Amino acid sequence: MKYSTFETKITVRPDDIDMNQHVHNSRYLDFVLFARYQQMRDNYKFPMEEFLEKGYGWVVKNCWIEYKRPLFLGDEITVRTGVLEVDRTDVRVKFEIIRNKTNKLAANGYFLYTMINTTTGRAEVIPDWVIERYSV
Amino acid sequence: MKYSTFETKITVRPDDIDMNQHVHNSRYLDFVLFARYQQMRDNYKFPMEEFLEKGYGWVVKNCWIEYKRPLFLGDEITVRTGVLEVDRTDVRVKFEIIRNKTNKLAANGYFLYTMINTTTGRAEVIPDWVIERYSV
Amino acid sequence: MKYSTFETKITVRPDDIDMNQHVHNSRYLDFVLFARYQQMRDNYKFPMEEFLEKGYGWVVKNCWIEYKRPLFLGDEITVRTGVLEVDRTDVRVKFEIIRNKTNKLAANGYFLYTMINTTTGRAEVIPDWVIERYSV
Amino acid sequence: MKYSTFETKITVRPDDIDMNQHVHNSRYLDFVLFARYQQMRDNYKFPMEEFLEKGYGWVVKNCWIEYKRPLFLGDEITVRTGVLEVDRTDVRVKFEIIRNKTNKLAANGYFLYTMINTTTGRAEVIPDWVIERYSV
Repeated sequence: MKYSTFETKITVRPDDIDMNQHVHNSRYLDFVLFARYQQMRDNYKFPMEEFLEKGYGWVVKNCWIEYKRPLFLGDEITVRTGVLEVDRTDVRVKFEIIRNKTNKLAANGYFLYTMINTTTGRAEVIPDWVIERYSV
Repeated sequence: MKYSTFETKITVRPDDIDMNQHVHNSRYLDFVLFARYQQMRDNYKFPMEEFLEKGYGWVVKNCWIEYKRPLFLGDEITVRTGVLEVDRTDVRVKFEIIRNKTNKLAANGYFLYTMINTTTGRAEVIPDWVIERYSV
Repeated sequence: MKYSTFETKITVRPDDIDMNQHVHNSRYLDFVLFARYQQMRDNYKFPMEEFLEKGYGWVVKNCWIEYKRPLFLGDEITVRTGVLEVDRTDVRVKFEIIRNKTNKLAANGYFLYTMINTTTGRAEVIPDWVIERYSV
Repeated sequence: MKYSTFETKITVRPDDIDMNQHVHNSRYLDFVLFARYQQMRDNYKFPMEEFLEKGYGWVVKNCWIEYKRPLFLGDEITVRTGVLEVDRTDVRVKFEIIRNKTNKLAANGYFLYTMINTTTGRAEVIPDWVIERYSV
């Protein structure tokens, strides 16, 4: 296994809850986004700010998510993410969201991110040194 | 083609925009949700409130979304949705999000919804009369 | 009365609803923000983009809001806003949110905005020509 | 001083950031709401769930907020809240939001909450035993 999986803890906020008394479906994507930012900074030691300074950015190309069990007000969750594969301009990042109280899977899926050059706005082949920074 | 496609117009709000000056990725899911609610009421003539009164509800089982082009502050968009297929307890709903200014595709994908009995909380085979209400 | 009041219509989205089945308290502020953007463009003919190009921006200094009646899923609302007074670096903008179905007041209040020079990041006395653009 | 002040730590999430690269104005209200829920559970030992079970609820009557300094992506903040006064059906709760990195005030203000009987939907004089539960 070349790439590691990292974990970030999040406490559900009241504004994450929707009319069904569960965490709103689209907030799951925000939880994964938060986890990636935290893990870039704390685990990869490659914070988004540094990535942007180099003239690069990530855009989401597509996303797949399976909802397994609801999350509730006050829940503490664990978001596990890790690089699945790197393919030219793209990185596939898998994720799992665990409800800590039961230790059961609440959702899983992946994001496909494309690296762009922020000057040209175009996709660019991911350089080896970037791949290395993600290979911890 | 058994099922119809319907359209809902939405104007992007400032609170939909994120730090990248684009509509935030997760808000696309909220736009589709809004379109489905409007279309249940206006096109299927089967508003969510009536569905809930019958003792049924929909939960999202999974979702697939492809981001094609960014959406910006002040954009008016068209969200097209339609039933793709009904399979026992599940309905697959496809969607397309169009940026009206350019008439180009901003995103597309589908949601798989499971019908639940709100008393038991369990998935239930979708009755024929419900399928008929969606067959307009 | 030197300054006019303008109106913007908004349809409540499902993602605006919280666990109490009402529009979430903080979303009222987002509705007013949306109304101001629309009215800058359509009524003052002075879109935020143009304001930013001139090197100016608005920041919220404080906000007062009174919640009178709840708003519900599917509600259409009218957001009325208008300049109350201009005082050196600051503009006070009043607002009212009306629930169209009943034509009753759902909330009212005001925002105090400070004009900043986006180069210096500092508050700046609002020039006469800006006041004139708001005096329609 | 009859009523105590409590503190809750929150880490700003990427979805809290708006197009100005700061925490979005309306999210400050959500941070205070989150802090109150945590403090009801952890400090008052009177979680919202228990309050609702007794047949009571809180609705926001009005809110005043002063924005002092911006909050940024990745910031850790401290939200301090405390009861200011109880007046028949109403409780005034003050809040301060501190940016931990600088230990400076980012915002302050108060919420006025009215206690309602969830069966009648009407405001009700706050019983002594409820006031006592908040007098820790």
